[in-house]
Amino acid sequence: MLNHSPSLDLMFAALADGSRRNMVDRLSRGPATVKQLAEPLAMSLPAVMQHLRVLEESGLVRSQKTGRVRTCYLEPAALNAAEQWIAERRAGWLSRLDRLGDFLEES
Amino acid sequence: MLNHSPSLDLMFAALADGSRRNMVDRLSRGPATVKQLAEPLAMSLPAVMQHLRVLEESGLVRSQKTGRVRTCYLEPAALNAAEQWIAERRAGWLSRLDRLGDFLEES
Repeated sequence: MLNHSPSLDLMFAALADGSRRNMVDRLSRGPATVKQLAEPLAMSLPAVMQHLRVLEESGLVRSQKTGRVRTCYLEPAALNAAEQWIAERRAGWLSRLDRLGDFLEES
Repeated sequence: MLNHSPSLDLMFAALADGSRRNMVDRLSRGPATVKQLAEPLAMSLPAVMQHLRVLEESGLVRSQKTGRVRTCYLEPAALNAAEQWIAERRAGWLSRLDRLGDFLEES
């Protein structure tokens, strides 16, 4: 995956906040209303809506309004993209370590 | 892992920039000097040093100066912490999906 990706910028920025990680964590256990997301955070609904906007813009979360209730869902594909980027770099580092080990064994 | 973690804040914020991801990517293939990190970015050394500072403060990278040359190294343990946080949320989501599948099969 390219390093210069506006969507990775938005995803990692969205995850760089404890309240938003809390919301992602909650949504990993199932859909939730905005009110349900706000409860454990001891945060006003407008503040939660603002965090929700950041999460939605990053693609990590989507929401749907039915009547007066907005329900939020995790988008695991986006979470996967962020995880994948990190995993590939860590794999690169580990494979370099392996090659170094081989080299030291042979010499 | 706790959702409210200042170190996760710093790590994800550090990864939310294409130039810094480029540096992490380069370092995943082995240590590099600041000059080597700057080359593909077409960026001034002071600008790279500023990004390096953000990466060092997040724990993702460390650097060491020998004479006039500063060499940078990836810290895979920090990268692992960020990856782990995401992986756990994705696993939570998948296990919920499994339970839902079991429920639908049984009913």
